Amino acid sequence: MPDDVDLKKLAMVSSPTATHLLLKLGIRNTFLEGIKPLTSGAAVVGRARTLRFLPMREDIAPDPEHPSSNAQRLAIESIAPGEILVVDAGGYLGAGTLGDILCERMKYRGALAVVVDGAVRDSAQIREVGLPVWSKGVHGAASSRSLWPDEYDIPIRCGGCTVMPGDYIIADEDGVVVVPPVHAAHIAEDGSESERREEFIRMKIRDEGYSTTRAYPPNDEVLAEYESWKKGEATRG
Amino acid sequence: MPDDVDLKKLAMVSSPTATHLLLKLGIRNTFLEGIKPLTSGAAVVGRARTLRFLPMREDIAPDPEHPSSNAQRLAIESIAPGEILVVDAGGYLGAGTLGDILCERMKYRGALAVVVDGAVRDSAQIREVGLPVWSKGVHGAASSRSLWPDEYDIPIRCGGCTVMPGDYIIADEDGVVVVPPVHAAHIAEDGSESERREEFIRMKIRDEGYSTTRAYPPNDEVLAEYESWKKGEATRG
Amino acid sequence: MPDDVDLKKLAMVSSPTATHLLLKLGIRNTFLEGIKPLTSGAAVVGRARTLRFLPMREDIAPDPEHPSSNAQRLAIESIAPGEILVVDAGGYLGAGTLGDILCERMKYRGALAVVVDGAVRDSAQIREVGLPVWSKGVHGAASSRSLWPDEYDIPIRCGGCTVMPGDYIIADEDGVVVVPPVHAAHIAEDGSESERREEFIRMKIRDEGYSTTRAYPPNDEVLAEYESWKKGEATRG
Amino acid sequence: MPDDVDLKKLAMVSSPTATHLLLKLGIRNTFLEGIKPLTSGAAVVGRARTLRFLPMREDIAPDPEHPSSNAQRLAIESIAPGEILVVDAGGYLGAGTLGDILCERMKYRGALAVVVDGAVRDSAQIREVGLPVWSKGVHGAASSRSLWPDEYDIPIRCGGCTVMPGDYIIADEDGVVVVPPVHAAHIAEDGSESERREEFIRMKIRDEGYSTTRAYPPNDEVLAEYESWKKGEATRG
Amino acid sequence: MPDDVDLKKLAMVSSPTATHLLLKLGIRNTFLEGIKPLTSGAAVVGRARTLRFLPMREDIAPDPEHPSSNAQRLAIESIAPGEILVVDAGGYLGAGTLGDILCERMKYRGALAVVVDGAVRDSAQIREVGLPVWSKGVHGAASSRSLWPDEYDIPIRCGGCTVMPGDYIIADEDGVVVVPPVHAAHIAEDGSESERREEFIRMKIRDEGYSTTRAYPPNDEVLAEYESWKKGEATRG
Amino acid sequence: MPDDVDLKKLAMVSSPTATHLLLKLGIRNTFLEGIKPLTSGAAVVGRARTLRFLPMREDIAPDPEHPSSNAQRLAIESIAPGEILVVDAGGYLGAGTLGDILCERMKYRGALAVVVDGAVRDSAQIREVGLPVWSKGVHGAASSRSLWPDEYDIPIRCGGCTVMPGDYIIADEDGVVVVPPVHAAHIAEDGSESERREEFIRMKIRDEGYSTTRAYPPNDEVLAEYESWKKGEATRG
Repeated sequence: MPDDVDLKKLAMVSSPTATHLLLKLGIRNTFLEGIKPLTSGAAVVGRARTLRFLPMREDIAPDPEHPSSNAQRLAIESIAPGEILVVDAGGYLGAGTLGDILCERMKYRGALAVVVDGAVRDSAQIREVGLPVWSKGVHGAASSRSLWPDEYDIPIRCGGCTVMPGDYIIADEDGVVVVPPVHAAHIAEDGSESERREEFIRMKIRDEGYSTTRAYPPNDEVLAEYESWKKGEATRG
Repeated sequence: MPDDVDLKKLAMVSSPTATHLLLKLGIRNTFLEGIKPLTSGAAVVGRARTLRFLPMREDIAPDPEHPSSNAQRLAIESIAPGEILVVDAGGYLGAGTLGDILCERMKYRGALAVVVDGAVRDSAQIREVGLPVWSKGVHGAASSRSLWPDEYDIPIRCGGCTVMPGDYIIADEDGVVVVPPVHAAHIAEDGSESERREEFIRMKIRDEGYSTTRAYPPNDEVLAEYESWKKGEATRG
Repeated sequence: MPDDVDLKKLAMVSSPTATHLLLKLGIRNTFLEGIKPLTSGAAVVGRARTLRFLPMREDIAPDPEHPSSNAQRLAIESIAPGEILVVDAGGYLGAGTLGDILCERMKYRGALAVVVDGAVRDSAQIREVGLPVWSKGVHGAASSRSLWPDEYDIPIRCGGCTVMPGDYIIADEDGVVVVPPVHAAHIAEDGSESERREEFIRMKIRDEGYSTTRAYPPNDEVLAEYESWKKGEATRG
Repeated sequence: MPDDVDLKKLAMVSSPTATHLLLKLGIRNTFLEGIKPLTSGAAVVGRARTLRFLPMREDIAPDPEHPSSNAQRLAIESIAPGEILVVDAGGYLGAGTLGDILCERMKYRGALAVVVDGAVRDSAQIREVGLPVWSKGVHGAASSRSLWPDEYDIPIRCGGCTVMPGDYIIADEDGVVVVPPVHAAHIAEDGSESERREEFIRMKIRDEGYSTTRAYPPNDEVLAEYESWKKGEATRG
Repeated sequence: MPDDVDLKKLAMVSSPTATHLLLKLGIRNTFLEGIKPLTSGAAVVGRARTLRFLPMREDIAPDPEHPSSNAQRLAIESIAPGEILVVDAGGYLGAGTLGDILCERMKYRGALAVVVDGAVRDSAQIREVGLPVWSKGVHGAASSRSLWPDEYDIPIRCGGCTVMPGDYIIADEDGVVVVPPVHAAHIAEDGSESERREEFIRMKIRDEGYSTTRAYPPNDEVLAEYESWKKGEATRG
Repeated sequence: MPDDVDLKKLAMVSSPTATHLLLKLGIRNTFLEGIKPLTSGAAVVGRARTLRFLPMREDIAPDPEHPSSNAQRLAIESIAPGEILVVDAGGYLGAGTLGDILCERMKYRGALAVVVDGAVRDSAQIREVGLPVWSKGVHGAASSRSLWPDEYDIPIRCGGCTVMPGDYIIADEDGVVVVPPVHAAHIAEDGSESERREEFIRMKIRDEGYSTTRAYPPNDEVLAEYESWKKGEATRG
């Protein structure tokens, strides 16, 4: 079924539009609270890979000096093109969960972005790498100061939402929304149409002074104008 | 009395200067805490229109699918040139109170800015619209997820301050300050003079190495220098 | 001993690298939490001067109208080239501890930056002054609304860390780290070397697709490549 | 319609049961978050009277030295038997909204309780008065330090919920729930029945070791046992 | 190895003493922050069973009306004598994770306590049941409002610490500490001895005015007194 | 001047009354926010001794295994009858600043109470000791986990207020208020009179149904009744 999702259309859907349409479908809790873009201007759509950190427990944590087989590394070394790493660090802001080198590696492997319910480190260097990051903050300490990677490819909590491996992730200027695969095709269709209609409405408000009473939501007359504008666009476009 | 306020002079007053002068007048609580500009560089002065959201109550909230007569829409469709919409959403960050389309409409009607004790949505699109926004955050969900518009043109709580309809609002890089109309003419006069004096002091510190002991507050000698500099400026300007 | 610190090398060390190396030395608590750059792009290294504000007590606070001998002014008027003023305002966000004029003065005297566990005011003007500031927020009110300067050149609490007068401060995009003088030479040496090695590792990951298993930390083979690359750089450079 | 509400039955319904049944009716947001009983053991049911404080604005607040006609006093001097004063102080914890004397007066007039989204003062003396209070905290300062009473008998925000004048309030050990009048009769009926069924289930679990698989929710067999137990109780009772 | 743990001795160890001894062993993070006893006076020692809730996702959550095979029920219906259910609800306070009926069942099965990083409901009724509860708060809503039970018998995050199935839990007036099994025998031995020594020290301070310089930690003389007091106790006891 | 303070009268003044009278004198910030009694029912008046903890810095902190000359011990071993130890731990809740043994010692030396802007440990045992404690929380870890004692007998920040050595402290059910010595005699006089008048007002409201309009503040008639009641009390008492 995910094969049926038109990723180009999904990429036209903003995080607020997706949130709104999912709410109409009865999925209330999809916008990750408190998680912001590290740099402005990025917008990506991809599939979630998940990773969970737990608070440091020196008696059980894997040795941070030999990280090769810990859950974080396994997640990063298996990430595939089009994927987004979504990290549950419990909202902890006292250590960065990852830095520029791991971002460089994920970018090389084709990852599209990183989303962290917690902090990252090396923010200036991450910007150089160019892998977009959404997080709750920045902290200079390495994760091993107070976190250990527990598991990957499991359901996680992130920004007050559940993220499952394979969920679609829309991340943009406003923030990050998780789209359940079962609804992704619908969001791509209705969402891209909705964005277009809103673009038309904004144009009418901006250029012709339509009131929101008339245009938002559009009344029948405005809807008809929209439909004929769309046809015109299709002809021109 | 508001007619006597010199808006050009008031527009020269920064939010910190206004806050400071109001405190001297015994008005302690005028700087809206925790409310930040959505984009940097904006600075506006206008009159407050107010709107209050309350937490969603499904048994009483107006139908969000037919918003034409709810308080939010009535506020927006009646906003006038020079006005700033100030929104009390109780600091709630789990839904955006408004997005790009409503901003487009307010801009068309001549509104100068929006100030929200809560979140907005469509932040990237709002930047395109070009209506400056100050808020506590961004959230993708529409307000109807968890808020309903209760009333407009009433006293509200915003950023820990009371804002009355008709209050003057100074919003800039530092944040937002509310200026009671009864003190606005005074703030315009004293504030613009104060900004000019501080500009002179900064110049003397920067270019001639004056100590703050001598120049901040200025001693009599420095004050005299300032007065003659002002005369020179007036001659040249 | 501080004379032995190579400031050029220390300036090559990012705040996360310094934090990490200090943690390895057993100094766990050196990255100031929640304190962010006011503008992006700044990076400084200097020695700490300290200042503490306490909550306003009208019966004991020095007269804010005659500030010449209060602790804040004494700190500012005695600051020397290469120093960074680190301010403990208890994390209080309801008043700015200092504004553009005091920043102008500190810049004139050669100060490199200001770090505040609390808020500043006049943020737009401070950017004009060009003295980099790290703080927890911005507030328009003058400090005398709710704070008074208690002492300077004493141990303080800042961002959940202890800062001593004379500590080295590394402040960059990620945030601020305090380096105990006894460890500064070591951090300069090991840190600058560490930065260079990480640059090499990132290059290998980016250009040649090295896995992190192989390169981070580097295995013997990669380490050998690094050593010969370094020699090549030295020859070329 | 409120006349049809069986208050005795409503008083048998705990706040969690009412919250749960309202959620089933689609009213999601009825349990006031963060508002706790000042003393343990109290449980009341009554109708809401409402009052809103706003942050102090010295240019508009009524004179606290002559309080006779401010909104707080008008609310208190008009409160009637069976009513509960619900106060919106914006969650502000830096001043007490009321103390023992106003509680004494409300108790005399027949009020059942006070619920405050903010703080109270004189907590020890309020316990002597014997009027139950639910609040977010205690603070020694009088409200006039930083609040002024804006209006009463209006819709308010309290603990993240909307409270309307005339709403039913159930307040107990767990906290406070607001019951819309339109649903109160239903909550009284279904809630009291639900409490009884849960009492029976707890008894079966405690005395006969029923598993929750069998008894919670009860399967048909357990439901039949409950029905016959109820009949027995009715016969005996 | 856990068989070697003397539970009677472990039960003599207070949560602060256990925290302190574990810190000396290099296990820094064992005291669950922000989790308080629902009623005062309880003190238990047992083995952890774990359960994790995630934020509600309507497309994947098990049907709350047919809970028989969800993770919460499986955990509760398999809990064994001497065990303590430790629940990770992500610190969420907007819904109760469990109430009196589930507590009644756990008590019947021999569970000793419940520890929740989140809220519970039916607090008054839970007190009647008599199963001790430690939590961050109380909320009237059922968990299905915003949580779903993800898994049980897995590593969890609770109060900023990692809790593993089988960990020893010491819960008392101060709060809850997690004791790794590998250190439990040591904590039982050293901890019970430490409690006894502290009791002796307190007695000497209270009855004979020993200074802390002399007695805390005890110098050689006081240690000798302690040893002979212990012998006397053994003889008498 | 402190010699002139009537401690018996000061002990009759509740913390809210003292806060209110100090505010009238222009001292706005005297009630320690967020600091609660560990056990209910205690009420003390005494002189402040102060102590400040700073965040752990392993390179400078005194050795916690040899505490005899650190600032905490020096404060405790020099505390005198009638004094209250007021501790600035920066509001940090991740470690207890002191426990039962140090409380036992302070009690022996005549201390009246401990007030902590942070946490304590051994709360159950502290209750046995019987020294009243006000704090922000409880944590099992010893202070040396993350704090070190910096100085004593210096101005400190506590609950958002400045506390000076020698300040009068009133601590009761509502919380803790700091009374500047220069105002203590006035607070003792006016405060005790104010408490008596409020007792009379509450009696009139409770027993005779006086309205607050008439009695709070009392009009001339009620004031006259109060004066004659006072005389009667004096005669009887």
